[in-house]
Amino acid sequence: MDNFTFYSPTYFSFGKDTETEVGAYVKKFGGTKVLLHYGGGSVVRSGLLDRVKESLLKEKIAFVALGGVKPNPRDDLVYEGIKICKSEGIDFILAVGGGSTIDSSKAIAAGTLYEGDFWDFYQGKPIEKALPVGTVLTIAAAGSEGSPSSVITKLSDNLKRGTSSDLIRPKFSLLNPALTMTLPPYQSASGIADIMAHLLERYLTKTKNVEVTDRLIEALLITMLMEGPKVIENPKDYEARANIMWAGMMAHNNSVGVGRTQDWASHAIEHELSAQYDVAHGAGLAVIFPEVLNYTMDQDLLRFARLGANVFGVPYDYETPKNTALEGVKRLRNFFNSLGLPSTLSELGVKEQDLDEMAHRACYGNGRLGFLGGFSNLGEEDVKNIYKNLL
Amino acid sequence: MDNFTFYSPTYFSFGKDTETEVGAYVKKFGGTKVLLHYGGGSVVRSGLLDRVKESLLKEKIAFVALGGVKPNPRDDLVYEGIKICKSEGIDFILAVGGGSTIDSSKAIAAGTLYEGDFWDFYQGKPIEKALPVGTVLTIAAAGSEGSPSSVITKLSDNLKRGTSSDLIRPKFSLLNPALTMTLPPYQSASGIADIMAHLLERYLTKTKNVEVTDRLIEALLITMLMEGPKVIENPKDYEARANIMWAGMMAHNNSVGVGRTQDWASHAIEHELSAQYDVAHGAGLAVIFPEVLNYTMDQDLLRFARLGANVFGVPYDYETPKNTALEGVKRLRNFFNSLGLPSTLSELGVKEQDLDEMAHRACYGNGRLGFLGGFSNLGEEDVKNIYKNLL
Repeated sequence: MDNFTFYSPTYFSFGKDTETEVGAYVKKFGGTKVLLHYGGGSVVRSGLLDRVKESLLKEKIAFVALGGVKPNPRDDLVYEGIKICKSEGIDFILAVGGGSTIDSSKAIAAGTLYEGDFWDFYQGKPIEKALPVGTVLTIAAAGSEGSPSSVITKLSDNLKRGTSSDLIRPKFSLLNPALTMTLPPYQSASGIADIMAHLLERYLTKTKNVEVTDRLIEALLITMLMEGPKVIENPKDYEARANIMWAGMMAHNNSVGVGRTQDWASHAIEHELSAQYDVAHGAGLAVIFPEVLNYTMDQDLLRFARLGANVFGVPYDYETPKNTALEGVKRLRNFFNSLGLPSTLSELGVKEQDLDEMAHRACYGNGRLGFLGGFSNLGEEDVKNIYKNLL
Repeated sequence: MDNFTFYSPTYFSFGKDTETEVGAYVKKFGGTKVLLHYGGGSVVRSGLLDRVKESLLKEKIAFVALGGVKPNPRDDLVYEGIKICKSEGIDFILAVGGGSTIDSSKAIAAGTLYEGDFWDFYQGKPIEKALPVGTVLTIAAAGSEGSPSSVITKLSDNLKRGTSSDLIRPKFSLLNPALTMTLPPYQSASGIADIMAHLLERYLTKTKNVEVTDRLIEALLITMLMEGPKVIENPKDYEARANIMWAGMMAHNNSVGVGRTQDWASHAIEHELSAQYDVAHGAGLAVIFPEVLNYTMDQDLLRFARLGANVFGVPYDYETPKNTALEGVKRLRNFFNSLGLPSTLSELGVKEQDLDEMAHRACYGNGRLGFLGGFSNLGEEDVKNIYKNLL
């Protein structure tokens, strides 16, 4: 096991009606004037935003509302948020929404206490201070409610980049599974794929003898296989929503990923899709990940055979473990399909003529040096092959 | 899933030589004058205490040393620690040792900032403030390095009682698996049993549809089955020590136990052994737990059959699931035996004439109302039977 540090100080309140406590939590963590950041649509329609406002007013907490966050959150709204926070003397950012809203909030939180351009943090500059962030989560997917990371898209040149710092970990996150019941099935399915991708990125490791985290990751993957179909079948299944919601947090706060190298090639490969075509991140991952697994399995066949056997219940082929590995990946793709997710790039509207440029950007964008993945170590040609195999 | 809150803000630094950073961590968390609390024996002999002192001196942090913590830590040393802290103006408690030393440190931390008798907190009074605590862990067992709880024995009337508060969660814990390599095999085995007991107490639940935590608990139990024998076979197996150490933390910081009722009858039943006979807590649990499982399995046979199948690899008997359940418990007992742990109370020196009194104290001591266990709901007669079945 590799040496590591782990620090996850977010206060979680989980369960029915937890969003009604939000005012008290903002107060507890020192907020007196809040930027209330959200997307739109269902957060407004469902009355959630009103309930949140009511809870803030009850605690006499002032707020300025800033809606309009879109999936794959963008720098323009971050700049707008920072401007508001600076001019209004905001001291707390409250995200009401999913990963996009939380990521945008984290960017605003860091940018507000910085004299320069917040984008510096997404080009590698370490964050030195940030306003506190709290969240009311409305979709189980990104894990941003318990993670130190944030991904923002720069509109001017379609760059999608991330930053990570314990300073932008949410102070509190309120997780009410009932809030996720109104998600359209495709979005629920994308969230499930996103959570599983976070687990698989951690599963792909070069570190040996990491039984404890291997087992924990496998446990969460199996949970997704068992609970995922339930919410597609019945979106109002509170218990399944609850299991998925906690699994989504655990998948990405890194308690199951410590002490081991991780991969993250699939995320980089997918980010180009989201940046170019604005596809749902999880749907893109559902297309990309199985192919990356097939493409890289020869580097550690026994790990992939273990995945097939332990997670997907494939009978172990001791003579040809690769059969176990391949069948596992096949079952993963079938699982995503069964949730209504695509399995080709064409279904996502991706055009063949863009693939070369996308592969180049995946490997050399974001300050990368031509190779992707702590495990899979893919070069530009590999990424091109992966894209083309998926057309 | 039941509503819950979860807050685990301990900073973990895990891996080789992490104890040499202790001075910097004390400084980071505001300590300027430290009570250096430890047991004795190997912490001194191995040179660990000297390395810790050196690290404190390097950061110019003053300290007062207080050794002598014994397994099943006692109130007399807590009183002594509180007295020192008050008179010396100590502002940070540093525990160097295992669960006993950490629990004693937590008691001192709360007692120092309290005008009354610290024992009040162990009789139900909520802790309102406490000095910060940090730990250098030397045994994987109690999970106190990441938990909000502390158990202390009151010598005058042999009472063993616990308290729990987020205020006494360690600010940091330094986990170097290499420090556990010098443990005698019996102590390593007791630690393994203790960790598994923490998991099983959480596994026994009345809450339905908690797949995510069921799977996570199973994952950690399997990890213990796979890694435990390795450290008995080869105490210097760093990787196995590392897997067990992280599993021990995860088993008890409650991230795998949230949202569900838990049992804890076995701990109460075992505490009487430790209080009367001063047996190693984990060894006592290794004797008690399998019998509690057998005694209570009829209350939810399918849960116990699942345990047998998913954790102990028992082929599932669909006609008579109880066979699967019973075989699972048998394998658990065999596993403990294979580590060199006892399976009867006689081996622990327990005398039959004490059992009635112990059963009474287990059920009515600590402010209990005659029944034990959130799942098993055992009365005085039940506890007597369990003790007697184990003679």
